[in-house]
Amino acid sequence: MPVRKYSDLLATAVRMEGAKNVFKKIPVGASEGWDGYTLRTFTLEPGGHTPRHSHDWEHVNYIIRGRGILMIDGKDHEVSERDFAFVPPNSAHQFSNSNDEVFEFICIVPNRGEY
Amino acid sequence: MPVRKYSDLLATAVRMEGAKNVFKKIPVGASEGWDGYTLRTFTLEPGGHTPRHSHDWEHVNYIIRGRGILMIDGKDHEVSERDFAFVPPNSAHQFSNSNDEVFEFICIVPNRGEY
Repeated sequence: MPVRKYSDLLATAVRMEGAKNVFKKIPVGASEGWDGYTLRTFTLEPGGHTPRHSHDWEHVNYIIRGRGILMIDGKDHEVSERDFAFVPPNSAHQFSNSNDEVFEFICIVPNRGEY
Repeated sequence: MPVRKYSDLLATAVRMEGAKNVFKKIPVGASEGWDGYTLRTFTLEPGGHTPRHSHDWEHVNYIIRGRGILMIDGKDHEVSERDFAFVPPNSAHQFSNSNDEVFEFICIVPNRGEY
């Protein structure tokens, strides 16, 4: 820090059960001095999806690139570049990419949600 | 919510002393259910700048569009689309746009920093 080029950050494959073709970066979190929350980015390759799950913390999202589906409590929301989203605590949710291009978004969580 | 198109959000002119050609939107905050923090966006028209100031809370930033200068404690950092930044608490800082195009960024603060 204080400034990080997105392209300089290393991506790691997400191995969580139910995740497919998902890669994560962590631009801003406790290591950078942010107390309490962590800003991650996720890249979903074509055909990729995050796990369908729920937890007692929220997501704050911004779509960096591409488009995809954000399912919240059984309802699909189409999202694309420059959209924001808020996933309430305890709602079932899943991001998926059924398009031919990469789908990439910011996902902010309280630190207990980053593991 | 749960999804908000950035272009649908109303922008307000920032009247704070020391701000010039600055417009703000608030995509995600207490009204959307986020406890503790607020995600704002700022648009700096050409020649625009935020106040040069400091406060005891941090900024978490992501550059949405364009490029500009982020000054932190007297040092200028060039920032452009897809960069992230973290402005530590109690550091003097200012965003400015001396280019011909709009400069636009996300700025997340604890709620006491949104007024």
